Amino acid sequence: MKRYQDMTAKELADAKAVLLERYQKFKDMKLSLNIARGNPSVQQLDMIMPMMDVINSDTDCRDKYGTDARNYGALLGLQEAREFFGELLGTKLEETIVVGASSINFMYDCLSRAMLKGVLGSDKPWGKYDKIKFICPVPGYDRHFGMCEFFGIDMIQVQTDEEGPDMDVIRKYVENDETVKGMWCIPKFSNPLGITYSDRVVKELANLKPAAKDFRIFWDNSYMVHHIYGDVQLLNILDECKKAGNPDMVYMFGSTSKITMAGSGIGFFGASEANIKFTESQVKYETISWDKMNMLRHVRFLKSQGGVENVMKKHAEILRPKFDAVFRVLSRELEGKGAGTWTRPKGGYFITFMANDGTATRINELVKACGVTMTGPGATHPFHHDPDDRYLRIAPSFPPVEELEPAMEVFAVCAQIATIEQLEAKA
Amino acid sequence: MKRYQDMTAKELADAKAVLLERYQKFKDMKLSLNIARGNPSVQQLDMIMPMMDVINSDTDCRDKYGTDARNYGALLGLQEAREFFGELLGTKLEETIVVGASSINFMYDCLSRAMLKGVLGSDKPWGKYDKIKFICPVPGYDRHFGMCEFFGIDMIQVQTDEEGPDMDVIRKYVENDETVKGMWCIPKFSNPLGITYSDRVVKELANLKPAAKDFRIFWDNSYMVHHIYGDVQLLNILDECKKAGNPDMVYMFGSTSKITMAGSGIGFFGASEANIKFTESQVKYETISWDKMNMLRHVRFLKSQGGVENVMKKHAEILRPKFDAVFRVLSRELEGKGAGTWTRPKGGYFITFMANDGTATRINELVKACGVTMTGPGATHPFHHDPDDRYLRIAPSFPPVEELEPAMEVFAVCAQIATIEQLEAKA
Repeated sequence: MKRYQDMTAKELADAKAVLLERYQKFKDMKLSLNIARGNPSVQQLDMIMPMMDVINSDTDCRDKYGTDARNYGALLGLQEAREFFGELLGTKLEETIVVGASSINFMYDCLSRAMLKGVLGSDKPWGKYDKIKFICPVPGYDRHFGMCEFFGIDMIQVQTDEEGPDMDVIRKYVENDETVKGMWCIPKFSNPLGITYSDRVVKELANLKPAAKDFRIFWDNSYMVHHIYGDVQLLNILDECKKAGNPDMVYMFGSTSKITMAGSGIGFFGASEANIKFTESQVKYETISWDKMNMLRHVRFLKSQGGVENVMKKHAEILRPKFDAVFRVLSRELEGKGAGTWTRPKGGYFITFMANDGTATRINELVKACGVTMTGPGATHPFHHDPDDRYLRIAPSFPPVEELEPAMEVFAVCAQIATIEQLEAKA
Repeated sequence: MKRYQDMTAKELADAKAVLLERYQKFKDMKLSLNIARGNPSVQQLDMIMPMMDVINSDTDCRDKYGTDARNYGALLGLQEAREFFGELLGTKLEETIVVGASSINFMYDCLSRAMLKGVLGSDKPWGKYDKIKFICPVPGYDRHFGMCEFFGIDMIQVQTDEEGPDMDVIRKYVENDETVKGMWCIPKFSNPLGITYSDRVVKELANLKPAAKDFRIFWDNSYMVHHIYGDVQLLNILDECKKAGNPDMVYMFGSTSKITMAGSGIGFFGASEANIKFTESQVKYETISWDKMNMLRHVRFLKSQGGVENVMKKHAEILRPKFDAVFRVLSRELEGKGAGTWTRPKGGYFITFMANDGTATRINELVKACGVTMTGPGATHPFHHDPDDRYLRIAPSFPPVEELEPAMEVFAVCAQIATIEQLEAKA
């Protein structure tokens, strides 16, 4: 197959005519397909339903330390749950807080408290600076960027490759600017690229010498066990930070939103013991305790009936055919044509399509007009602005394969049309 | 019975000797009793356990509008839950948000967002003022005061009587000081007095003409349906605010923490439609959605199996003998003796003891030395400082009656000893 870039005007016009014919056929089908949302599918949720039998009216609701999960108390979470999720995060009991259903909410909360009161070691609340800045690896997660936007935090965009974000750029900012207070990371199966930070990147992050003594890495490890194609290892950044003499530099977050149920799972937080004590001194003002019944339900289900690894294998079995379908259609339709490239993540929830620069918005337009909804262009960048108009996020998890295939075919056709349109416009 | 205040020195000494003998006997019993915490008892929690059977692995988890409670989405809560809890609050769907397990947490969150970003109609975030102030009816709830303390908000203490807080004082501050931004209220079965705001007080609150256009009443209606001795009515403040042309002035909060399970219940928020829209525009940054499975569980249980009123009757049956026991012991031991008075609430979770001024701390010391734990003196006031050293909160809900009786007897003996000690010191 010839690359579109190598075709003559005639060849391009012929190819375009064929593509437009296919496009019209799809349009006539009046499709309504959605590859926008990183939601688990009904099949995945059904698979988790046995968790709902773990607690019934006959259940003894005390954890193994005798705490009644039904009553107030245990601000940092049910001890049994702290131990369980701490093991998942790679933290000890004293380094772990188990919270409510949303880890995103606890990230927001940590940031909000930092703005209002500061973190351990702050001279003043972050909100008292004229301006503070966060390192934002791109492409990245719109909800992280949204929080910075909401709080008026400047976002320093740092490009990510298959090993992680560009450490030279990060060092330059973090080590020379006292107003750089934090950094967002999705270190494993990152949203949206699907890459996992290499050992080198994790070690270099842990060895940063921040100008701000209250700099924090927000380590959103949402996809820590979300393997689809074999195992992928990520270094424990808290361990690395301790070795580097920076034990307080990292806040780790995780949740079961994509292990058990999305939005009805359990969030958890890991950090140095000093950070945990400091956090406790703040969160005691904001709640009496988080939902311990759901903690108990999770621990008992994941321990006895499921086993995290076992549950994640079942998720992978449901997700793999969907990822396969995306890779299959993209390879078949686009391989070697110069109409864009894509990531091949080994886990997580997303595949990223790198369109030819300046065509992502047009591809999305074409796709949308054909009844296929995808995450809008720019969502991967601060303020929804992708300067190269390049990145499009594909979320294969929710639709069944029989919807995913035509959706991806539409997508591939549109990527080619947009490529040809751009080449013709340049000619 | 003669009042201690009317006794001669000899009579006081004789009475004290008898009391000290009783005190010593209690001390020798090495009691370990707790009347400190407003926690539901195990009996109450057991009564709610059938809620745990409402959702099992076979349950269809879509609400009646078809929303799958197991997945992300519905930022403002499952519609069926918004309708249900809105009815409880006296708000329409568009005036209701259903949140996570803790209404205290949502109060904190509303305050935190107000500090960082302001509320609807704010010229600037509350945190950008040199100082803002809150009206704090006293005696009141330590967690409300704690939030103000945490955020550095000045607390204006306003005395509460059986109708509610002193409206003349409130008007003076709210209508003349632009930095008075908010007010805490527990309008029904208030913590700790157990009083319910009269219609006059609710109407006068609704008719305030605040100097600050972004003044908010934080209406913590935690005990809205928590009747123990017959029905008590409270006006709907949102309705009154609308009538008064102040629809945006109130934030209403409620939860099922003491309807179903403490800490594993459902929190909800009611306000004008404009406030809800504004709140949505902020909370969209902080979470994807709250735990809708727990919402579904609650709605299905409280609708079909329980019925809020029915459940609350069962709670009342468990709580009434405990409140009875407190009243019985206090009456028997203290009536007419001039050693303190106490409230007789018709619902809620607390009884307040008004000691003779300057003796609350001493009573608590004596009680503690005898193995009885109660809420510390001062907890009812900002910064844990009760200027008159008068108020002690009794929480009868958790211990069984057979522990409550001796605890209250110890308490009554200590109140008398402290009274005599004070009279002797003055003599």
